[in-house]
Amino acid sequence: MKNFLFRICHLANLPLLLIVLLIGLNSCKSALNKSRTSKQNLAGDDFLYQYSIIDALMAGVFDGDLTIGKLKEKGDFGIGTFNKVDGELIMHQNRVYKVSYNGSVREASDTDSTSAAFVKFFQTDTTIYLAGKGLTYAQVQEYLSNKLNPNGIYALRITGLFSTMTTRAARPAKAPYTTLAGHLKNNQAVFNLRNTRGVCNGFLLPPYLARTNVPGFHLHYMDDSIKEGGHIFNFTTDSLKIEIDIAKGFVIENNTNDEFRKVNLAPDRGEELKKIE
Amino acid sequence: MKNFLFRICHLANLPLLLIVLLIGLNSCKSALNKSRTSKQNLAGDDFLYQYSIIDALMAGVFDGDLTIGKLKEKGDFGIGTFNKVDGELIMHQNRVYKVSYNGSVREASDTDSTSAAFVKFFQTDTTIYLAGKGLTYAQVQEYLSNKLNPNGIYALRITGLFSTMTTRAARPAKAPYTTLAGHLKNNQAVFNLRNTRGVCNGFLLPPYLARTNVPGFHLHYMDDSIKEGGHIFNFTTDSLKIEIDIAKGFVIENNTNDEFRKVNLAPDRGEELKKIE
Repeated sequence: MKNFLFRICHLANLPLLLIVLLIGLNSCKSALNKSRTSKQNLAGDDFLYQYSIIDALMAGVFDGDLTIGKLKEKGDFGIGTFNKVDGELIMHQNRVYKVSYNGSVREASDTDSTSAAFVKFFQTDTTIYLAGKGLTYAQVQEYLSNKLNPNGIYALRITGLFSTMTTRAARPAKAPYTTLAGHLKNNQAVFNLRNTRGVCNGFLLPPYLARTNVPGFHLHYMDDSIKEGGHIFNFTTDSLKIEIDIAKGFVIENNTNDEFRKVNLAPDRGEELKKIE
Repeated sequence: MKNFLFRICHLANLPLLLIVLLIGLNSCKSALNKSRTSKQNLAGDDFLYQYSIIDALMAGVFDGDLTIGKLKEKGDFGIGTFNKVDGELIMHQNRVYKVSYNGSVREASDTDSTSAAFVKFFQTDTTIYLAGKGLTYAQVQEYLSNKLNPNGIYALRITGLFSTMTTRAARPAKAPYTTLAGHLKNNQAVFNLRNTRGVCNGFLLPPYLARTNVPGFHLHYMDDSIKEGGHIFNFTTDSLKIEIDIAKGFVIENNTNDEFRKVNLAPDRGEELKKIE
């Protein structure tokens, strides 16, 4: 499959540190879709799938009934958490990994369960190569925000060598649960990784998906040797490959856990969410 | 298929005018689902499907690219509008009808298109019979709000003889479009129907679906003789049959019309929406 292909000139002196030169252009997403249409109905595999909603997780619904085995049927790429918010979930090439509070990474069991996860069958629509000395996560966000339509739903796979990578992972909570912000206050480990090569998986979502998901950027990291990672706070790098997958839409499957029925989902938790992202 | 079956005692003297007596209880939704699993993927047919989002319609994205023929593949029951907001859409038993600004009702062509529609394959989970002299739409809403979990996603099919039924239908807009509230201000017809027997189709949705759909109740009406109907503002009746279908989740397919890409979806249009519903 050939994709939109962008390559860069490495001109570290320029103000924005970013020069993007279009070299080639192609797409065969439609052909790929055709080969996958045998089991589609309301939403095909070019939709983002999510289990539960961010506001329920924010409000303390830390358990869900979807197994990791079932989650893998909904996508091959994505992010999320596990029951009890036990670590950070990253799905890469249809395998699911857990970055734990102690910093370790291991492949999750198919019998584990998730209380919130966002996945997709990743189909690259556009590839961008970016370079610039000391390029930060904030600069990459600014570049992509300017480039992409603000109303679109995007899966992002970013790979590179990161001189710094700051992440976090949550400690598993004990019932009775508090809110996510309340739990993270004293129960998240922050990792200051150095010279780490790996992949950042996640999403860029529009403002109308507030309450159900995280508007803006939300990425988790895992290094190529599967030894470190977590929910990304910041990074610096000199060059990046950014693969972008434009989704046709969005599927929300309600958490069937009884706590989801009981929780108060009326408040707008947008401001609370910004503080912990 | 047997459903949860509720029957009522008709005791019009009681304060709330509503007495509900459980007679029987059964469900075979799971069996029905099994018979339909051959073409499911990310979302099965127990999900609500919607094309575009309410905030885009509110902001003036009045055209879409989904034909009525395609919409019928996404559900057999539902509501919406047509391109140019030309009338009110009601889907009943997999047929789509248009209630026009002049009050007439006709079956829509499969080649017509919609800019916003919300549909489902209706599978009754619970049936409630309500009675009470002069029962109003507001009372029915209060009853159901108290009975149903506030975090659930419900399709509602309400049938009865209505002594009064107040509805509206929009006049088709001419480009360049204004907002929906701006358009409706001078371009909606209100119909005061009397002694009309028919069906109210629609949804009761949770607060976290604000921005994407209409939180709370949203129903359209069509009489049995297919001669009158519209978006429901109010009704009065002495007895009702209410069928409730609890959805497992929600599918949003983005409007591919270029106006959807251009519109500003950042503002929260919740208060504006309340004024026109």
